Amino acid sequence: MMARFTSFTTHDVRFPTSRDLDGSDAMNPDPDYSAAYVVIGTDAGDGLEGHGFAFTIGRGNDVQVAAIEALAGHVLGRDVDAALDDMGATWKSFVDDSQLRWLGPEKGVMHMAISAVVNALWDLRAKRAGLPLWDLLSRMSPEELVALVDFRYLTDALTREEALELLRRSEPGRAERRAELLRTGFPAYTTSPGWLGYSDDKLVRLAREAVADGFTQIKLKVGAHVEDDVRRLELARATVGPDVRIAVDANQRWDVGDAVEWISRLAPFDPWWVEEPTSPDDVLGHAAIRRAVAPVKIATGEHVQNRIVFKQLLQAGSLDVLQIDAARVAGVNENVAILLLAAKFGVPVCPHAGGVGLCELVQHLSMFDFVAVAGTREDRVVEYVDHLHEHFVDPVVVERGAYRAPTTPGFSAQILPRTLRHFAFPDGAEWTAATAATDTAAVPITTAPGRQVPA
Amino acid sequence: MMARFTSFTTHDVRFPTSRDLDGSDAMNPDPDYSAAYVVIGTDAGDGLEGHGFAFTIGRGNDVQVAAIEALAGHVLGRDVDAALDDMGATWKSFVDDSQLRWLGPEKGVMHMAISAVVNALWDLRAKRAGLPLWDLLSRMSPEELVALVDFRYLTDALTREEALELLRRSEPGRAERRAELLRTGFPAYTTSPGWLGYSDDKLVRLAREAVADGFTQIKLKVGAHVEDDVRRLELARATVGPDVRIAVDANQRWDVGDAVEWISRLAPFDPWWVEEPTSPDDVLGHAAIRRAVAPVKIATGEHVQNRIVFKQLLQAGSLDVLQIDAARVAGVNENVAILLLAAKFGVPVCPHAGGVGLCELVQHLSMFDFVAVAGTREDRVVEYVDHLHEHFVDPVVVERGAYRAPTTPGFSAQILPRTLRHFAFPDGAEWTAATAATDTAAVPITTAPGRQVPA
Repeated sequence: MMARFTSFTTHDVRFPTSRDLDGSDAMNPDPDYSAAYVVIGTDAGDGLEGHGFAFTIGRGNDVQVAAIEALAGHVLGRDVDAALDDMGATWKSFVDDSQLRWLGPEKGVMHMAISAVVNALWDLRAKRAGLPLWDLLSRMSPEELVALVDFRYLTDALTREEALELLRRSEPGRAERRAELLRTGFPAYTTSPGWLGYSDDKLVRLAREAVADGFTQIKLKVGAHVEDDVRRLELARATVGPDVRIAVDANQRWDVGDAVEWISRLAPFDPWWVEEPTSPDDVLGHAAIRRAVAPVKIATGEHVQNRIVFKQLLQAGSLDVLQIDAARVAGVNENVAILLLAAKFGVPVCPHAGGVGLCELVQHLSMFDFVAVAGTREDRVVEYVDHLHEHFVDPVVVERGAYRAPTTPGFSAQILPRTLRHFAFPDGAEWTAATAATDTAAVPITTAPGRQVPA
Repeated sequence: MMARFTSFTTHDVRFPTSRDLDGSDAMNPDPDYSAAYVVIGTDAGDGLEGHGFAFTIGRGNDVQVAAIEALAGHVLGRDVDAALDDMGATWKSFVDDSQLRWLGPEKGVMHMAISAVVNALWDLRAKRAGLPLWDLLSRMSPEELVALVDFRYLTDALTREEALELLRRSEPGRAERRAELLRTGFPAYTTSPGWLGYSDDKLVRLAREAVADGFTQIKLKVGAHVEDDVRRLELARATVGPDVRIAVDANQRWDVGDAVEWISRLAPFDPWWVEEPTSPDDVLGHAAIRRAVAPVKIATGEHVQNRIVFKQLLQAGSLDVLQIDAARVAGVNENVAILLLAAKFGVPVCPHAGGVGLCELVQHLSMFDFVAVAGTREDRVVEYVDHLHEHFVDPVVVERGAYRAPTTPGFSAQILPRTLRHFAFPDGAEWTAATAATDTAAVPITTAPGRQVPA
């Protein structure tokens, strides 16, 4: 019997994180971390579902949900095996919908919606294979991997043949690196001390704890007031000593000239990288900044819209560190393309994470990168924020500054049903009760209804 | 009495244009031209409303409507005079909403939604001033104009002071050019002959008609099959003779290498420009193509997401012709920024139009460019497609190959109430009746209810 996709259910889930200024930075003073969440079911009778989401920071999460729902027609009724076995073609069926494409093309709300659906399908495929996603990807042949990638608009920088060659070169060491990964995990760095809304005392305390916890890199938010930034970076440096790396993150606050000036003020405190100095769209601006502040490293990527902009950032020499995000570009397939581009240009990939479930997702991509693409963990770290993991069925485990490799089948994308219910916007208890307790542990586990898109 | 914005009503309007392959091109084979439409009302008692819209090509128009509705909270209840008198600050209040910004930033669905709302406010402001928008803008002082522009991320290419200087230089000739514009209009070119779905016979017939109608430039869609393109371009050239300009438009179909090869095949037939040879995101790709095919001109812009990408296209020498779109970047304000950038770099602006109401809107911007920014019409043309104008209250008038300058107050953005009702998706008569007549003239005029966002 052929199995078909039979359900497509969305959830607008929002956490009131703005109450404590968790996640505050120079561009985003009061985010309410949110997920536009989708669950895809089948009639296979195996009880397995695919879960995926786009991450937003509050208002507009409903728009993101609407965009995900616009894709339901491309999923419902389709042959499950055929769709999951050829994820390259499935990806194209979303991205190449000519009418939906007009809403981007390949950027913003519509592209993030594709991310949610594509990642949900990968979650399902990995569950059916009985493997965590990183391991599923790491067992695929070079031919199978390049078949996931849309090389349109990339061939002036990376052809299918070059990508194949690159994957074949790293194939022999896969088993050894897989074993090493399972033994020692993947390096993490923490942003928890560095939110802009935190006091100096809290910054110092959390930086000290981070080092005690085994992190060898932390990150501070900067970009609002230069004197504050100098003071906070100096404090952090004095706290962690010279050997712990301190990245700083300006969250797009500067123009090119501002960035160069500001970074020169921070340089004496040895920042490991400066992240998002200006608009994520400004390939040439990043290149100009990087030339002017060398040898200070420039990092960007969490808001980079697609593989085409990443290609140019690499071509123009705009960055030292490439930061993928698991849910902004169009899901696993496009991130495989970006990992291949980075490997071709020899630039380390250090993913953005945090938010809601971004750590859970993106750890898989870095682990796959280590085992099957870049083949090294040197100067590679995945961002870690100790935040909202309790809402996930298979939360990340970070120990002694490293992500432990997940072994549960899937993409670690699944949010607890009680969370989907309690934090549903605007009708969940968290949002209806002005005085609702934020302790979800007290909320009984029930099935979350969500909004089911009619088949 | 202070007037406030008191209503914010959206409409999902779709035309079944795919039935006749009108608007078909290599990327968009079957568009249903659509508008995500908004009407903003006040309690001023003057009966005036602001109308604006984003243009889409069918599926996803509901997502676009949802994004427009996400902005209602920034409009409803606000002081009308204060908002309209300082459109620079009003624009920033939409673009800098930190939570909504995450959905872009400044690109795609959310940015197009801002366009609809910003343009609706300009429509209202122009109506209140009793002037067509082009004239309202052309009467503003250089200081007032630069106050509309967000120079963030632009200052490495254009500062406020440079923009001021540029506007001051063209100030003396404004009155003369305004009179000239009212006398002779603004040059148009027509894409009507060139849709990819049309037969050779229809192409020849429509090209001949275009020349007879006084057009000195036409445009053909290309990019699906090179032999077809060569044949169609040769046919068109034979039909119109050597003196009529023929632009060709690939609608993003090529990679860099493909573009260079394909254009070399078309070059013998003297294309006036080659439009959208590759992804609108590929600044460096356009620059590489332009270098390789010179002196063939490269044009792009209808899908360029914002001023930051236009800045780079100019910095990198990626284009000979800059094509703004009235409703993709964030409305009038951002297009003023782009006109200023183009003037700084000495690149002519030849807007994209067609779709639903894009001709109606963008004519105002080119006329303003002529009177107050670039100060010339040389090598400037506005696209014209003879399509769907009958649905507008103040449709464009194109005579002898030129747009007549509108004199009715406003932004010419207003769709007829009967059209809003008849083409409402999915509940309008056009979509509910399988055999509904497409002749809207037979539909009685009534007020369109739309979806009113609660205040």
